[in-house]
Amino acid sequence: MDIKAQLAAYGEAINDKLDEAMLLPNVPQLLKRAMRYSLEAGGKRIRPCLVLGTSEMLEGDREAALVLGCGLEMIHTYSLIHDDLPCIDNDDMRRGRPSNHKVFGEGQAVFAGDALLTYAFEWMLGQGIEKNDRNYYRAVLEIARRAGAGGMVAGQSLDLEAEQNGIADERALYAIHDRKTADMLIAAVLAGAYTANPTGEQLRSLESYASGIGLLFQITDDILDHEGDEALMGKTLGKDEKSNKLTFVSLYGLEKAKTLAEETARQAAQQLLPFGERAGFLHDMIDLIKDRKN
Amino acid sequence: MDIKAQLAAYGEAINDKLDEAMLLPNVPQLLKRAMRYSLEAGGKRIRPCLVLGTSEMLEGDREAALVLGCGLEMIHTYSLIHDDLPCIDNDDMRRGRPSNHKVFGEGQAVFAGDALLTYAFEWMLGQGIEKNDRNYYRAVLEIARRAGAGGMVAGQSLDLEAEQNGIADERALYAIHDRKTADMLIAAVLAGAYTANPTGEQLRSLESYASGIGLLFQITDDILDHEGDEALMGKTLGKDEKSNKLTFVSLYGLEKAKTLAEETARQAAQQLLPFGERAGFLHDMIDLIKDRKN
Repeated sequence: MDIKAQLAAYGEAINDKLDEAMLLPNVPQLLKRAMRYSLEAGGKRIRPCLVLGTSEMLEGDREAALVLGCGLEMIHTYSLIHDDLPCIDNDDMRRGRPSNHKVFGEGQAVFAGDALLTYAFEWMLGQGIEKNDRNYYRAVLEIARRAGAGGMVAGQSLDLEAEQNGIADERALYAIHDRKTADMLIAAVLAGAYTANPTGEQLRSLESYASGIGLLFQITDDILDHEGDEALMGKTLGKDEKSNKLTFVSLYGLEKAKTLAEETARQAAQQLLPFGERAGFLHDMIDLIKDRKN
Repeated sequence: MDIKAQLAAYGEAINDKLDEAMLLPNVPQLLKRAMRYSLEAGGKRIRPCLVLGTSEMLEGDREAALVLGCGLEMIHTYSLIHDDLPCIDNDDMRRGRPSNHKVFGEGQAVFAGDALLTYAFEWMLGQGIEKNDRNYYRAVLEIARRAGAGGMVAGQSLDLEAEQNGIADERALYAIHDRKTADMLIAAVLAGAYTANPTGEQLRSLESYASGIGLLFQITDDILDHEGDEALMGKTLGKDEKSNKLTFVSLYGLEKAKTLAEETARQAAQQLLPFGERAGFLHDMIDLIKDRKN
């Protein structure tokens, strides 16, 4: 199947499962509306698609992959709600709609995020309790680790600190993106792998692969931002005309950033060699991220 | 052992375990400091003490009870950090010290809360992974349920909504307190019970007991607030002189609120009858809450 069709098929399965997960009969109306508002805002469901694609590659349990993918999407969504708050990024818009706190108020947005995060674990644990499968719990644990104090939240905290004090250096830039972006992609492929019976070697290859596409995602993001700014200004920008924010483009310049993207894509692809032909979907994801236009 | 000594002994064991849990070698310095700041602010550790006491009563696994108790305390602490934020209760002080956002800023306080919540699950799941004990996962699931969108966060969201729009009636008041206060106490005793091999009947009695002490806690809180206000004003306050906030005292008057506290305490004690003499600690907790002076 071509990658766009595959993503659409995965996305539909995920959205159906999310509808099931988000019935929430015991949740007060306002809180439920706030939780659903952001979850249904129509993201690309990249993380759950990676869970499904990895699970399918290793002939894992598709039902478990769907459940874990929904949990990851809830966690990703809560992180966007909190990131958009006035005391953090202060973004009024998200995915073309007013951000959560613009609709529900800041306090309810904090709670909607807290509720989505807690519910992700309630949902994943609740669906797993009758299986009693150790690999399933390893997947949930991996998600908690990568989403938490040493993973995504660490990246968000470092990013905010850097925003306030300036990023010190290249190393700090990589550390922030590894944690803020890559960790949740790593969680996705490892969770997908745990729905099968992965070897340690497979887990290591998949972790490197996801770390690579995380970096690739960030580099291409910086390139797109840079080119968008240039289009807006109608000219080629010199380094000094850009904002102070340290990005891969401000660090290396545009051409070298593009070369780095190519190199990162090549290295990610190499990690898929042990999986042979079955790695088609994960392979196509690299190109999709590298060649995206937004 | 007398209740004060028992609480001190449990508290020490909990604090030692929390020190172990909070080493956090992979967490950035600022985030780690913000997480520890609120956790080490010296709460009474009521919830973990209930886990330990219930576990001991049923001859459960003490080590598991310690781990689950620490998880609950992390979740309780995160909820206080977020509740104190300017967009929610706007409290500058907590437990006699500046609240988290006054020290670390609002954005970092949001992340410190998010990190504590996520880490609670990382910690509990990480400690449980080698056991592969279904009752242990039931305990973690119970904690997620009671802390989340249908439990504590529901109570917080309803409370904020009521603060903004006024509480409609008695039923709403009970609904808020059940979820905001009682649910985490229920999670504590049920988690403690799951460290043993509880019967369904035992679980039901313990849930009713904890629901009762949650209500008792709230009624006595309202009575203490009322008496504190009176002492401050140097006279007996009429209903109309109090704030508009609906409390058990404003709803029933002081005397009837005291009667309701006695009745609630009696009903909670009845739930402990099936456990006989082994329920000493849980029994003493009722009196402790009923007769507290702050």
